[in-house]
Amino acid sequence: MVAAVELRTEAVSPASKMESVRLLVQPELEEVNRLIIERMQSPVEMIPVLAQHLIAAGGKRVRPMLTLLSANLCGYRGQRHMGLAACVEFIHTATLLHDDVVDESDLRRGRSTANAVWGNKAPVLVGDFLFSRSFQLMVADGSLRVLEILANASAVIAEGEVAQLITANDTATTEQAYLEVISAKTAALFRAACQVGAVIAERPAADEEALASYGQNLGIAFQLIDDALDYSAKEALLGKTVGDDFREGKITLPILVAYERGDESERQFWRTTLEDLRQEPTDLERAQSLLYRHGALELTVQRARGFGDAARRALSVFPYSRHKQALLDLVDFCIDRAY
Amino acid sequence: MVAAVELRTEAVSPASKMESVRLLVQPELEEVNRLIIERMQSPVEMIPVLAQHLIAAGGKRVRPMLTLLSANLCGYRGQRHMGLAACVEFIHTATLLHDDVVDESDLRRGRSTANAVWGNKAPVLVGDFLFSRSFQLMVADGSLRVLEILANASAVIAEGEVAQLITANDTATTEQAYLEVISAKTAALFRAACQVGAVIAERPAADEEALASYGQNLGIAFQLIDDALDYSAKEALLGKTVGDDFREGKITLPILVAYERGDESERQFWRTTLEDLRQEPTDLERAQSLLYRHGALELTVQRARGFGDAARRALSVFPYSRHKQALLDLVDFCIDRAY
Repeated sequence: MVAAVELRTEAVSPASKMESVRLLVQPELEEVNRLIIERMQSPVEMIPVLAQHLIAAGGKRVRPMLTLLSANLCGYRGQRHMGLAACVEFIHTATLLHDDVVDESDLRRGRSTANAVWGNKAPVLVGDFLFSRSFQLMVADGSLRVLEILANASAVIAEGEVAQLITANDTATTEQAYLEVISAKTAALFRAACQVGAVIAERPAADEEALASYGQNLGIAFQLIDDALDYSAKEALLGKTVGDDFREGKITLPILVAYERGDESERQFWRTTLEDLRQEPTDLERAQSLLYRHGALELTVQRARGFGDAARRALSVFPYSRHKQALLDLVDFCIDRAY
Repeated sequence: MVAAVELRTEAVSPASKMESVRLLVQPELEEVNRLIIERMQSPVEMIPVLAQHLIAAGGKRVRPMLTLLSANLCGYRGQRHMGLAACVEFIHTATLLHDDVVDESDLRRGRSTANAVWGNKAPVLVGDFLFSRSFQLMVADGSLRVLEILANASAVIAEGEVAQLITANDTATTEQAYLEVISAKTAALFRAACQVGAVIAERPAADEEALASYGQNLGIAFQLIDDALDYSAKEALLGKTVGDDFREGKITLPILVAYERGDESERQFWRTTLEDLRQEPTDLERAQSLLYRHGALELTVQRARGFGDAARRALSVFPYSRHKQALLDLVDFCIDRAY
């Protein structure tokens, strides 16, 4: 009972902000969901079964919402933003399926991962299918410019994921290298999701760039908070196991801060657990206490706030509108969900 | 010494045919190779290292050759066919990287597979990168029609791969279901590779369809021979381990024929080894002897010849040219490499 109450108290403010954002685009989001279900069908039954497993589990749909809100902010009045929002979600889902194989994760969005249920084979191939399907949807949309933006984003995401493999398990990673990784693996799709909204509304380059910059900065903030949450949030709240990054030896900003500020015996602890992956059952707890002692999570959240502020500033070229307000609220949500 | 001589004798005829085809498009193929090397570069060093491992190992480059030959057959005089041939090879390479992860293969083109060297993580992500890169190349080419053809092919390939997971280990698979799987996983890219040649030459729909049909039938013939080779060829000649399909419990046409023609004890053997994957060291040899006894490989090659004939007939709408002759020679090569 205590845990449930605590959870509710923690979740109220950002969740209700997210709720009002969602309400603003509710009918369009429902159409996006309908398109997602429709377009993940295949005569090969295992494809919708497996895609459904992940897509129906919900997720926050932050990325498709970005496309919807950006298009609306730009005064777009057609139907294309919904198809493109579905594309963006397909790309995201494909990368999640592949990530979980790569990370050997067992839990995602509070459910068993596809690889935990079906092994590695089907998620790799269904990811490929969803990725191809997203390009089919873009072709149907008919804009080479949109195709360019999303193809570029996809290549950058893959580069970021590979770069992360290399920085993983290396405590000598710099904050700069870490920021480049998350800029690529996470922020590139946030950026593209926003940018295409301006493109289909045929807005001038400055508006397109403003939304791209908003998305980029929001994406970095979002990932920083994700990395902090991996050491702090309740599993139930986050929908994933706490300590995943630790167990995989993933080097994130909280670790870099604690390593930088730690003494030699602490650094030895980080190298043993994250580089050599030699971990005792109590090591996660020790890691959390070291992060706490050095204010590593606070500093990470502070960095996220900085990027959140940059995201807000990027929108200053746009006059007030409900959709602009929603994009600003999304920044709050992405950061405050840490509490 | 004996093995080397034997290998040379076996390989002479189809290899020399392939050589003359290759000579015809040699300068264009060199430009394709240059484009492939250029476009697989990335600031993330592991990407070209890993892509190079597979791409530099050679392979026959059958698919990009199909695009080059088809474009030339259609009288195309520009540069685009070389970029698109590189796209096709990237898509193929991406699927190979993912296939080897899915199949847990150790050898490909006579070298250790990427997954055997680097584990599963990097090949999944580098495959994603090459796939994205191929779409970037298509966007640079600028034709929505070409993008549509190759995006559709990619989706069909992924569907075929998933369908293969399902038919794998099921001796009740029908020949029809098997042909559908290989039509999708292999023939779809052969088809698309040929079709885009006609598209960029702006030929009428009938010519486009003729080349698509040629590619489709050739692709099926190619895969049938691959499946026969898995039980018959010398490992050195094929560049892969004999018996891979058997060890994975993959149900291919040779198996379906032997199962159909076998008695109950033989069927029990196939179920034990391929469905339950309970295999003794001598089982591959027994499998080969059963395939031999029932003429299963001969029948598979005979089926391949049928599809090869259909591929040749599809080209009848085109007048004689050196490039048409080369496409006809490719049919011979794809089938005769079995000997």
